[in-house]
Amino acid sequence: MTDTDRPFDSLALPRFCGVATFMRLPQAASADGLDVAVLGLPSDNGSPFRTGARFGPQAIRGASVMLRPINPYRGNIDVFSALRVADLGDAAVVPGYMPATLSHLEAAVHQVVDAGACPLLLGGDHGVSIASLRAIARAHGPLALVHFDAHSDTWDTYFGGERHSAGTPFRRAVEEGLVDPHRSLQMGLRGSLFTPDDVEQSRRLGYEVLSTDDMLAEGPTVLAARIAQRVQGAPVYLSFDLDVVDPGNAPGVQTPEVGGPSAREMMAILRALHDLDLVGADIVECNPLYDGPGAITALLGATVAAEILAMKAVLARRR
Amino acid sequence: MTDTDRPFDSLALPRFCGVATFMRLPQAASADGLDVAVLGLPSDNGSPFRTGARFGPQAIRGASVMLRPINPYRGNIDVFSALRVADLGDAAVVPGYMPATLSHLEAAVHQVVDAGACPLLLGGDHGVSIASLRAIARAHGPLALVHFDAHSDTWDTYFGGERHSAGTPFRRAVEEGLVDPHRSLQMGLRGSLFTPDDVEQSRRLGYEVLSTDDMLAEGPTVLAARIAQRVQGAPVYLSFDLDVVDPGNAPGVQTPEVGGPSAREMMAILRALHDLDLVGADIVECNPLYDGPGAITALLGATVAAEILAMKAVLARRR
Amino acid sequence: MTDTDRPFDSLALPRFCGVATFMRLPQAASADGLDVAVLGLPSDNGSPFRTGARFGPQAIRGASVMLRPINPYRGNIDVFSALRVADLGDAAVVPGYMPATLSHLEAAVHQVVDAGACPLLLGGDHGVSIASLRAIARAHGPLALVHFDAHSDTWDTYFGGERHSAGTPFRRAVEEGLVDPHRSLQMGLRGSLFTPDDVEQSRRLGYEVLSTDDMLAEGPTVLAARIAQRVQGAPVYLSFDLDVVDPGNAPGVQTPEVGGPSAREMMAILRALHDLDLVGADIVECNPLYDGPGAITALLGATVAAEILAMKAVLARRR
Amino acid sequence: MTDTDRPFDSLALPRFCGVATFMRLPQAASADGLDVAVLGLPSDNGSPFRTGARFGPQAIRGASVMLRPINPYRGNIDVFSALRVADLGDAAVVPGYMPATLSHLEAAVHQVVDAGACPLLLGGDHGVSIASLRAIARAHGPLALVHFDAHSDTWDTYFGGERHSAGTPFRRAVEEGLVDPHRSLQMGLRGSLFTPDDVEQSRRLGYEVLSTDDMLAEGPTVLAARIAQRVQGAPVYLSFDLDVVDPGNAPGVQTPEVGGPSAREMMAILRALHDLDLVGADIVECNPLYDGPGAITALLGATVAAEILAMKAVLARRR
Amino acid sequence: MTDTDRPFDSLALPRFCGVATFMRLPQAASADGLDVAVLGLPSDNGSPFRTGARFGPQAIRGASVMLRPINPYRGNIDVFSALRVADLGDAAVVPGYMPATLSHLEAAVHQVVDAGACPLLLGGDHGVSIASLRAIARAHGPLALVHFDAHSDTWDTYFGGERHSAGTPFRRAVEEGLVDPHRSLQMGLRGSLFTPDDVEQSRRLGYEVLSTDDMLAEGPTVLAARIAQRVQGAPVYLSFDLDVVDPGNAPGVQTPEVGGPSAREMMAILRALHDLDLVGADIVECNPLYDGPGAITALLGATVAAEILAMKAVLARRR
Amino acid sequence: MTDTDRPFDSLALPRFCGVATFMRLPQAASADGLDVAVLGLPSDNGSPFRTGARFGPQAIRGASVMLRPINPYRGNIDVFSALRVADLGDAAVVPGYMPATLSHLEAAVHQVVDAGACPLLLGGDHGVSIASLRAIARAHGPLALVHFDAHSDTWDTYFGGERHSAGTPFRRAVEEGLVDPHRSLQMGLRGSLFTPDDVEQSRRLGYEVLSTDDMLAEGPTVLAARIAQRVQGAPVYLSFDLDVVDPGNAPGVQTPEVGGPSAREMMAILRALHDLDLVGADIVECNPLYDGPGAITALLGATVAAEILAMKAVLARRR
Repeated sequence: MTDTDRPFDSLALPRFCGVATFMRLPQAASADGLDVAVLGLPSDNGSPFRTGARFGPQAIRGASVMLRPINPYRGNIDVFSALRVADLGDAAVVPGYMPATLSHLEAAVHQVVDAGACPLLLGGDHGVSIASLRAIARAHGPLALVHFDAHSDTWDTYFGGERHSAGTPFRRAVEEGLVDPHRSLQMGLRGSLFTPDDVEQSRRLGYEVLSTDDMLAEGPTVLAARIAQRVQGAPVYLSFDLDVVDPGNAPGVQTPEVGGPSAREMMAILRALHDLDLVGADIVECNPLYDGPGAITALLGATVAAEILAMKAVLARRR
Repeated sequence: MTDTDRPFDSLALPRFCGVATFMRLPQAASADGLDVAVLGLPSDNGSPFRTGARFGPQAIRGASVMLRPINPYRGNIDVFSALRVADLGDAAVVPGYMPATLSHLEAAVHQVVDAGACPLLLGGDHGVSIASLRAIARAHGPLALVHFDAHSDTWDTYFGGERHSAGTPFRRAVEEGLVDPHRSLQMGLRGSLFTPDDVEQSRRLGYEVLSTDDMLAEGPTVLAARIAQRVQGAPVYLSFDLDVVDPGNAPGVQTPEVGGPSAREMMAILRALHDLDLVGADIVECNPLYDGPGAITALLGATVAAEILAMKAVLARRR
Repeated sequence: MTDTDRPFDSLALPRFCGVATFMRLPQAASADGLDVAVLGLPSDNGSPFRTGARFGPQAIRGASVMLRPINPYRGNIDVFSALRVADLGDAAVVPGYMPATLSHLEAAVHQVVDAGACPLLLGGDHGVSIASLRAIARAHGPLALVHFDAHSDTWDTYFGGERHSAGTPFRRAVEEGLVDPHRSLQMGLRGSLFTPDDVEQSRRLGYEVLSTDDMLAEGPTVLAARIAQRVQGAPVYLSFDLDVVDPGNAPGVQTPEVGGPSAREMMAILRALHDLDLVGADIVECNPLYDGPGAITALLGATVAAEILAMKAVLARRR
Repeated sequence: MTDTDRPFDSLALPRFCGVATFMRLPQAASADGLDVAVLGLPSDNGSPFRTGARFGPQAIRGASVMLRPINPYRGNIDVFSALRVADLGDAAVVPGYMPATLSHLEAAVHQVVDAGACPLLLGGDHGVSIASLRAIARAHGPLALVHFDAHSDTWDTYFGGERHSAGTPFRRAVEEGLVDPHRSLQMGLRGSLFTPDDVEQSRRLGYEVLSTDDMLAEGPTVLAARIAQRVQGAPVYLSFDLDVVDPGNAPGVQTPEVGGPSAREMMAILRALHDLDLVGADIVECNPLYDGPGAITALLGATVAAEILAMKAVLARRR
Repeated sequence: MTDTDRPFDSLALPRFCGVATFMRLPQAASADGLDVAVLGLPSDNGSPFRTGARFGPQAIRGASVMLRPINPYRGNIDVFSALRVADLGDAAVVPGYMPATLSHLEAAVHQVVDAGACPLLLGGDHGVSIASLRAIARAHGPLALVHFDAHSDTWDTYFGGERHSAGTPFRRAVEEGLVDPHRSLQMGLRGSLFTPDDVEQSRRLGYEVLSTDDMLAEGPTVLAARIAQRVQGAPVYLSFDLDVVDPGNAPGVQTPEVGGPSAREMMAILRALHDLDLVGADIVECNPLYDGPGAITALLGATVAAEILAMKAVLARRR
Repeated sequence: MTDTDRPFDSLALPRFCGVATFMRLPQAASADGLDVAVLGLPSDNGSPFRTGARFGPQAIRGASVMLRPINPYRGNIDVFSALRVADLGDAAVVPGYMPATLSHLEAAVHQVVDAGACPLLLGGDHGVSIASLRAIARAHGPLALVHFDAHSDTWDTYFGGERHSAGTPFRRAVEEGLVDPHRSLQMGLRGSLFTPDDVEQSRRLGYEVLSTDDMLAEGPTVLAARIAQRVQGAPVYLSFDLDVVDPGNAPGVQTPEVGGPSAREMMAILRALHDLDLVGADIVECNPLYDGPGAITALLGATVAAEILAMKAVLARRR
């Protein structure tokens, strides 16, 4: 691995110079030879309300140039000497055509998996997750889902029967056998419901469900242990919907939900996670059209993605 | 009560379709037959600084379409099968003419009360509260005020003697006998003062006054008990100035005050309130001109209003 | 027709009071008894670039409250004493599912036509036009299209074969026999092209095509005569893409194109049109997410729609 | 006159340094010894729709720091060696209380007139003009009004009888004998009307009324001659409502009206005006809350004000 | 030249997919083998007022994805089959250190020139032009400057003697012999001046100077002939300051100047230019922080750059 | 001290009236006779990423008009009867020329110190601190630094060797002997690093370094005691980088860092500080271009500055 595989050095070249890739990483045309491939899934076909998550990947990239390669929360690890990472750009999508879009997304993620790399996916709305779960489960079998979200996204259909949207992937994933709900958790749920049964439906599907209050009740360390126990060493897919975080820290999402964890609380949880056998992850619902000039939602998305990279890096270093 | 009295179902018709009413409720021309009537009071005549709260009711309505009818914090109650609620639109106001405006507002609120419904009022700046207090106290006698606000709003006069503004309603209300201050609390006060005597003046009027630190010191349950004890079963008017919440969660207000409770802390307090004999409530000082594209202040206002509805629904269900 | 059929009087009740309907008109559940029905088509499924036109109808309504009922450019006609008009709200759409969406839109427009009213449609992106053309041509036969747009929107397919988007309706319309291209004009085209053949394709379909320069070359009166001659008294569908106007006057569109007519020039053209036998019209591509706080694109859309109403009103008065 | 009376030199000290006064002029506590006094009238009590013009004076000042002291359209005159000018800050206003506000404004303008200076007034909404007309007519007798506006502002009452708002000053001014309508013109009117009689009412009051089309028909020189002839050498009050200009150049106003002159066309008209015996002027309806980050409406307001100063300077130099 | 040298096809892959390069062109590490190299010069060190032009290149790239490869104003030329073009990203800059920045910029432009390519430069504020002029004049000798700008940018020093800023490059360029002022024109000047002598100084340096009114007086064809005559076939450097265009079309600049040509008028001038022996060009002063959500200034910058490419393409095709 | 030395009374004159000075204080041309002088240092020459802090002082002033003179957290002290304070406006800066800028800033701060006043400095980016430290240490000898920041700002050089930027002042300050690092603390550090050694470098320079977690671990009182012990009664310079606070409360900064203390937590720390012998303070990195319409970062900056004033006032009162 050569020096040219590292991100641009922001002490040498200002962050606003050049084309923004994730963390100023090199671009690559394929995942060959990579440990982790950053890939955008810029679809908002699944958005029943605020649209614009198609611009999420470029917003996260734009904010990610502020991040630096060393992670002090995980032993000052130098992420990019432990992992070969590149930015593959975005998968193709077809605005207005969900079925075609899901095919494109699945194919693009599958190419990454096929090359032996772990996909780090930047949404797009949560409707993209069913595509990546299909691609990854094809290689790894049923996955343990570690899911942070203000909503369960296990509704059945929308608007007269359409089965794919930002509100349905985790019901579809169980139906299709892509995730093993008994090794999976949904965390951070809160807010008003469509039916009194909404949360129970998730539980009946097999998921362990923690409300925001539950998630925060016992602190990051206990929660991390609970997650580790639940996933039982299975291959893990981490799905992070930015709306899990309080709207004060994540205004730029499709359906903000008042009263979530602060970004600091959320990062403490992520930083407590270790040793997950991560085979894929997505950070979804970043919508820069609703994010204000400070772009704090995009920065949060980038910071979450970088933390996932660091989690992978520590494991890689150890091996 | 028929199905057509329920809100539009956002799983059937996207939230951005149609005219935005509060929580997608039906519109009504009068409060006849309603338990609760949502009414906008779009006056910013009382705003000594940032103006624009005249657009507060429509902003709260616009954000409220994200809310769903079931409240999981109060036993998964289905609010709209427990209560008949409709959106009455807005009262008339006269920009630039406070006295005429207060007459219009009082008349509009009085019509609601007269029809036997509880008014759920969307401001407008805090100067509207004196009008609604007048209308409601006319029917119910002196009210117990449960007041959340960063400021006491008990100043005497502004700008050479004018007696009505966003800073004066709760002095006027005592002077006019509309509230019984000895059954009333002001909570959440903080920030710099005009005179060393500002807070003492509120206490001398008879109010119990809790600073932000006081309000948060012992947790929501203890606070709720203290409130219940103070109001002693009297008819309650709840006045919620969105600036009580930290500017990070409520930037879109007239005079933000650094260092308030987070929206999560504030919602926990509201959710701890039970059994108040609520005869009216207002949510004021939502100013979308200062609220950023995510509209998180408006969403907070809508969420507070929905929580008040749920509180009423539980009581109604029980009867 | 009673007084309650008229818009709210903005000298009596401020424009910011109450729910915003088009020009503060009454709402109606159906088009029965109406001359013109205003209907929103809030789909942005057809948007290959900037999404958000789903919020176009509510943005146009919000700006339209500034308009007054008398049109001084057409003999001070009192539009709403000449025409019965109401706002029907929005048709249902299915985000991410273009085929289902087009069915819903066509059905909704057909209901209006079936009731004998002329639909005045607020987009939504230009992809909605194929649905309204289908509904209207079903009743009236092939239509004369009067089309203002910076782009011809006669491309064939997008993104691997999808046939419906904002860029394709006017090829589809010819293929389906909905418009008679030989009685139709496309005006205002400009800007860079995908192939050297783009404009010629429109001509080969049968359309008369005028570039922005052509459209402005001889003045509004001559242009209006040319249009009248081309349509030959056939039933006319007017499709107005706001991007025909210069981005300085219409920044809030999906794909702005530098160098269009000013809003003043465009309105002069519309005001020169008389006696068209208008059986339907749409104003599309209003995207408030890109429109700035002044909302000048939405106001332009509202003004165009009001001018179309006035054109109808003069004809109605004359009969 | 010393060098310290001149504006800060923007080649010596960057424009963003220091407190922003109009054109970086010195501040003064009174108009004594001044030829022209810049005074803000930050009232939006008269705004029936978009409020926020209270921030107009500071927005115009903020943009005016971009202006330089030499005017090339009037013989390269050095404005501040020909005229003694200072910025007096803002008059006091009372939000929500129009009558008290008008008293304050009138007193403040009168002080300027009394000191022998010409007031150059920065609004505020158009409701402030009645106050300045009262103050100035007291000293100079009935004034010739040169009024640029998209609206006549000669409506009678609003909202149940209130006589003072942004829509009424020029009816009041005739009723009170403050302007001589037969020496006055209203120019730039356009857009929809409340009644077929709106414009005729202005003419019956005595005003000469030119629509936007009329105003632009014959070019700046002919128009300037027509204005000069109309005012007949009488003392002139120039009232400039920024909404006269097209919304593409002036989005930050209360009630934008599609289809006005461009800023270039408008400036050409102002630059054609010479030799008017100007005894006062206002630039009103600048509302930064609707003006976008480029602040082009505020810059236009500042440029108009600077042109008026230059017009005065040429006359002063000649004497 | 292979197909992979062409821009992404926006009918195949949506414009929001992937990393934004200029017109979706391929990236390249050097200019070897290119006819034209697009290079960003992201310095705002020279900005005495509104800063942020460092983000100009990425804003222009972001808007340029809307452009298509065929130019209908120049015979439907397919620009990228006539010219080999790539995007080289940005030159390095050193914020806060003008001298070091100018060295970096000059070196980067020189590399392009040295490789035999024509640099198409995206600013950055106008302070970057002195660096590119140095690099290009080194290869081509004194250049004919074709300069569009609201300001002459021939001031001498700023802030106590500093010689390099956005306001000085074209004085420096004459002093250093980089341009031949007698073959050069400055066009579009307008607005207030620092001294009565400002414009004359430019003329004394040798430039032909046309005000905005002069530039527009005789139409694009006559102007183009005048430019052609002035440059006398010398190697031409075209410098385009976006503030030459009216603020209604270009709000996102450092020092907007009221009353410029519309974007349509400006493009007509550029489209009238033919046969210039262009050896370099810059488009400067695009500042997205002041450009509103529609990004119309950035789109204008991209459209100007694309027109310059097309001008080169026609010449290349002819040879 | 006369009444005219007090701020404008916002109960008498609305906050939006007049020129905005810090807390509506009087302006002064020099610090003579003052206890504290508020001075803006509007340089963003040191900003390697988001530029615009040059507008920080005016943004803080604009928000500070919301503050009132009595501080309830320090015994209801009336700040301006205890201290003579005025607003001196801004120091001169030279955009693009860091060395010249630092000279100007140092001279301006030195004038304040020389007059015997304590400078309360409003940045500008953190690059300004080296100038104020030079000026103040000249009078007071090596200073105890109390530094709140998400970053240590002790990097060595940027971009090829430049020694002054927002990232370097506290290394320079040790090298130049301006601060005594053994009496100094850096608090609030967090986020990713350039090298594994970043934080250790600060410690090797002699600073005590507390991460955000460390800073918050034991509560404000313990932290305040630790600070008091560290500074050992030495003259203190307090440097407050607004990015120390979480981006949810301070989005308007150059390089936001996810996961900081809330504004409430931060204010509690500041309010726990007593008896520091403060000889200077700065509040830096307020960048209104990234701060959203609510301006909550600017308000936070103003509130921090007011708290520092109150800390000084208590000490002054006691003496």
